[in-house]
Amino acid sequence: MSVGDVSKRILLGRKLRSSQLGETLLPKRIALPVFASDALSSVAYAPDEVFIMLAIAGASTYVWSWKIGLAVAVVMLTVIASYRQTVHAYPSGGGDYEVATVNLGRNAGVTVASALLVDYVLTVAVSISSASQYAAGAIPVLIGHEATVGVIAVALLAAMNLRGVRESGAFFAVPTYLFMVAILGMCAYGLMRLLAGDLPDAESADLRIVPQEGWEGPLTQIGLMFLLARAFSSGCAALTGVEAISNGVPAFRKPKSRNAATTLLLLGLIAITMMMSVIVLAKQMTIRYVDPHHLEQLRTSSGAVPEGYEQHPVISQIAAGVFDHFPPGFYFVVTVTGIILVLAANTAFNGFPVLGSILANDGLAPRSLGSRGDRLAYSNGIVFLAGMSMLLIWVFDAETTKLIQLYIVGVFVSFNLSQLGMIRHWTRHLRTESDPAVRRRMMRSRAINTFGLGMTAVVLVIVLITKFLAGAWITILAMGFFFAVMQAIGRHYERVELELAADEQDKVMPTRVHAIVLASKLHKPTLRALAFARATRPNVLEAIYVSVDPRATNRLLEEWDERHLDIPLKVLHSPYREVVRPIVEYTQEIRRASPRGVVAVYIPEYVVGRWWEQLLHNQTALRLKGRLLFTPGVMVISVPYQLRSSQAAQERGRLDEVRVHAGDLRRGRVTSRDSERQVDEP
Amino acid sequence: MSVGDVSKRILLGRKLRSSQLGETLLPKRIALPVFASDALSSVAYAPDEVFIMLAIAGASTYVWSWKIGLAVAVVMLTVIASYRQTVHAYPSGGGDYEVATVNLGRNAGVTVASALLVDYVLTVAVSISSASQYAAGAIPVLIGHEATVGVIAVALLAAMNLRGVRESGAFFAVPTYLFMVAILGMCAYGLMRLLAGDLPDAESADLRIVPQEGWEGPLTQIGLMFLLARAFSSGCAALTGVEAISNGVPAFRKPKSRNAATTLLLLGLIAITMMMSVIVLAKQMTIRYVDPHHLEQLRTSSGAVPEGYEQHPVISQIAAGVFDHFPPGFYFVVTVTGIILVLAANTAFNGFPVLGSILANDGLAPRSLGSRGDRLAYSNGIVFLAGMSMLLIWVFDAETTKLIQLYIVGVFVSFNLSQLGMIRHWTRHLRTESDPAVRRRMMRSRAINTFGLGMTAVVLVIVLITKFLAGAWITILAMGFFFAVMQAIGRHYERVELELAADEQDKVMPTRVHAIVLASKLHKPTLRALAFARATRPNVLEAIYVSVDPRATNRLLEEWDERHLDIPLKVLHSPYREVVRPIVEYTQEIRRASPRGVVAVYIPEYVVGRWWEQLLHNQTALRLKGRLLFTPGVMVISVPYQLRSSQAAQERGRLDEVRVHAGDLRRGRVTSRDSERQVDEP
Repeated sequence: MSVGDVSKRILLGRKLRSSQLGETLLPKRIALPVFASDALSSVAYAPDEVFIMLAIAGASTYVWSWKIGLAVAVVMLTVIASYRQTVHAYPSGGGDYEVATVNLGRNAGVTVASALLVDYVLTVAVSISSASQYAAGAIPVLIGHEATVGVIAVALLAAMNLRGVRESGAFFAVPTYLFMVAILGMCAYGLMRLLAGDLPDAESADLRIVPQEGWEGPLTQIGLMFLLARAFSSGCAALTGVEAISNGVPAFRKPKSRNAATTLLLLGLIAITMMMSVIVLAKQMTIRYVDPHHLEQLRTSSGAVPEGYEQHPVISQIAAGVFDHFPPGFYFVVTVTGIILVLAANTAFNGFPVLGSILANDGLAPRSLGSRGDRLAYSNGIVFLAGMSMLLIWVFDAETTKLIQLYIVGVFVSFNLSQLGMIRHWTRHLRTESDPAVRRRMMRSRAINTFGLGMTAVVLVIVLITKFLAGAWITILAMGFFFAVMQAIGRHYERVELELAADEQDKVMPTRVHAIVLASKLHKPTLRALAFARATRPNVLEAIYVSVDPRATNRLLEEWDERHLDIPLKVLHSPYREVVRPIVEYTQEIRRASPRGVVAVYIPEYVVGRWWEQLLHNQTALRLKGRLLFTPGVMVISVPYQLRSSQAAQERGRLDEVRVHAGDLRRGRVTSRDSERQVDEP
Repeated sequence: MSVGDVSKRILLGRKLRSSQLGETLLPKRIALPVFASDALSSVAYAPDEVFIMLAIAGASTYVWSWKIGLAVAVVMLTVIASYRQTVHAYPSGGGDYEVATVNLGRNAGVTVASALLVDYVLTVAVSISSASQYAAGAIPVLIGHEATVGVIAVALLAAMNLRGVRESGAFFAVPTYLFMVAILGMCAYGLMRLLAGDLPDAESADLRIVPQEGWEGPLTQIGLMFLLARAFSSGCAALTGVEAISNGVPAFRKPKSRNAATTLLLLGLIAITMMMSVIVLAKQMTIRYVDPHHLEQLRTSSGAVPEGYEQHPVISQIAAGVFDHFPPGFYFVVTVTGIILVLAANTAFNGFPVLGSILANDGLAPRSLGSRGDRLAYSNGIVFLAGMSMLLIWVFDAETTKLIQLYIVGVFVSFNLSQLGMIRHWTRHLRTESDPAVRRRMMRSRAINTFGLGMTAVVLVIVLITKFLAGAWITILAMGFFFAVMQAIGRHYERVELELAADEQDKVMPTRVHAIVLASKLHKPTLRALAFARATRPNVLEAIYVSVDPRATNRLLEEWDERHLDIPLKVLHSPYREVVRPIVEYTQEIRRASPRGVVAVYIPEYVVGRWWEQLLHNQTALRLKGRLLFTPGVMVISVPYQLRSSQAAQERGRLDEVRVHAGDLRRGRVTSRDSERQVDEP
């Protein structure tokens, strides 16, 4: 073992044997945090949005806050009940996309896929924007630079994912459980203080909220309805991410579907408890929270709020109040909230390649996304996701409230299509099923999905009405774009498949092989190519040299004679230093002379290891290959000669393939060494 | 002939047969403008720089202007006399680079090449900056936007050259002769009016020049010397471009060297006449011209010049004065000057690829630059040249005066090395020559070159002293960078050549061929690959399928049986959707089993025509090929299947190769059709 090997082993750990790349399944206690961070993290911003919307008509409407919370909880329970049907019926991990495609056809599936693609971008943008607001709440120096903080955070996440993160259960479990402990602990302590009668008011409790222009008078019935609808649809941001488990069923331990359904229910109950606790506590502490763009709505007893007043997120305000005598409690809650939001953003980076590979296998995305280990395709996806979300954060100045307007449409589009798909699914199965017990279960499931569809359809309509002009149109436009691109790709692959389909007459058997070996010099690569070519025993074998300079030509001819190579060397003259065209024309000539034969062009290539070395070599060979591929009846044979520097590159390539990719954990794929240490051990 | 063919013929002209790409030689009357635009165009800025430098100490030093002009003229004549020796001794077109390499060794050659590379960038930057100042002088709305105008102009030039310009003699001849007519005509008319006594003063004649800080008092002897040295070295900008002809000797009609030498002399005489006329006329019209950064030096009789005073270039001011009753004369002069400056910038775009191909053939630049028709390498060069010069124009705000400080060092470095090389050349030849007449000629030539070296060495020292801190250090740094890169490339190629050199033991003849055909589906490309593979009659032939999904595998196996293909299909299982690794490992296994055999991997590929189609296909095949090339004892065979859409791409590729590239004209290569029309016809 060389010194280089030793240092490599220290840096990268022991080399992984390919057999170590195994399938590891997640127990429920690990699966919950792996899939929950996205859904749970919305507790960090959904209540804020409810209060903001209600504040439009002044603080008096805050009495509705817990009722809106309840309505959101009901929708969430319905959606979770529906998805529990899905994980049983579609345990393969295709999720909404599979349900929609199988039951409603490709257009519906592509629509769901577009919605999911847009959602991944928005998950990153919303979560990171919210996280940077929490960061600014705890570190005052960041105030006013939230967008910059957010863009940098996304760039770091992208870099981490490009580099390849070794995800593990612990990576998700620790922060997620800490977040639950932090929020539920804070709420429990707050409620205790409430019962004890010493719960302090929030920092904003002294403020008065002036209704926005047009909302000053007493509310009409319709006005109130509209206001509540807007608050409700903003609160529905809490539902984002609950569908994640339906994409991850294959990663669960057996019985997969049952475990996934249980985890889903658990997730829902925890999310609802957290959200309701936060809303109730905020109400009790008389929090005042308005759109950060309408801070002029806030008034102190002496008039307008002072210039530079910073409004902290709801959870920050609660934590500051509840832990007024214990600052570490405040910092713990805020820090853990920030971390869970970043983790939620990271799930998008994991989910994106998973969706990409599913779409690729269905011919709706470039095929290269479908195979594991295509670094390039995979990196492009991460860069695209990061770029789009950075753009959104920048344009919307990291304001969660504005980004939320774009967020929920996509989620509910896929909820709806998925529910509709599930109804079709049960109806179809009921047609053939005769066992009464099974039929009863199916009928019940269909009823749940029908109820779910009704509920989510109403929400979608509310969201569209209340949010279309506020930004949802951007989402719909983006979805339309993705839809068109995927359809175009799908049609292209279909067209090609049709053109390539084998028919009966297609067994062309070439009668003879005319082999030509390209010789640029008489060096080892050429000798090897000549030897390999001769080993295939072609009908004709000759070497070809393109002469651009008579002196070099004579030198080669002399060397050729000296070596007593019994292969004839043919010289093609090219006074203008062109190399590619004379060769292509020569192959075409051979083909014309014997149309049923095949021309085998042997290209000696030397393989170098470094990227800049590659720029210096083989460019002509590459160009020649590119042109020869267009010539019918020609096959192009690369005979590689490995230079010493190529060994390093080969090692790099090998390591790259066995490395763990983001998203592997949720697909049930981690290296066994990792999983032993990090999943099975406590 | 289809409708498509007809429309193509109308758009692109008749298809060129390859035999039409011929060598066409330039008569002197065409060669002069082809090679002169760079050298002549410096008349548009060199006099300005002389006046600017003198103005530092006030207008009283303007009495030295024509003496400085004379000094520049003497240097120019010397340099031209020296290059007349070069074109006789090195008629192959290698120019300074060849002279330095042959006589002084590779390091000197690489130094000259670095200087030339930097000079090409600066030629573009200086010419376009000057052109945009002329444009602003004629079109007032452009004032203050010179840098933007310059950057856009470079971008357009680059786009034009990327697209491929059909250069012709007329393309250069018309504007260059018009420029000569314009400048010499203007000067002649001006001198006539001077003799007639009605030559008006220039627009700036009424202004007073306040010396710059530190130059107020009467000049010391040393102060004056330094000032004149600076003015002289700036005036030497007029010499840039005179070496162009020494790179273009092969494009001249026979007797090549004699014609080139005559043209060179003619060029020098015209350039000197133009420069001296402009300086004398400017002096007579009492032009006042200062550094645009020190406009506060200018004073009117009532005090400072008004805010927003625009100082026009010297030729503009002369033209405005001489043609004070005939505005079309003014616009003609300014327009033609602008055009000749753009043309000068364009010569850099032509010279760059020529130099690149010479360096490539000497192993100092990527080899791909050496072969004609490598679009990619060629485009990269143009983009690089354009990018660097746009950067310079932007950073120096299109101020010719500042850019000139960077410009002249490189030119004089190559002048010096070239002269030194020529002295060595004559000395070496004198050692073997015995004919007294020839010896006498050689002695005379050596004397000329020695005188030239003395002269240019003095100028180089002056330039270095007066300009180092003003910007020449940037040039020297850039030259050092190019030098290091070229040396590194040279060493790399040498190392590789050594490693590849054929030795006696190297005739490995593989004993057997084990062919494997990759089958992803049973479609036409696979069938063709199977047929081709079978035609080569390998010792073992089998098809390989990487199974990622049992259903697809079974389907393929069934189809295989149905078709009665008598080639065995081996299935490699890959539960993690990896395709590349199982195949690479399988080939390694075969190699281990029979180390003296060779593994032939047949990859069916389908060829598509559009760039986005290429993104959608064959990515896995590409990756696989990349990995297999690193595996010893393997050859990789691409069996192409041409889809219908590939025909368009093939046609594009063919047209691309026969098209004329920038720089072809100066290498004596144009299509004969073109040349007949544009060179031989009047």
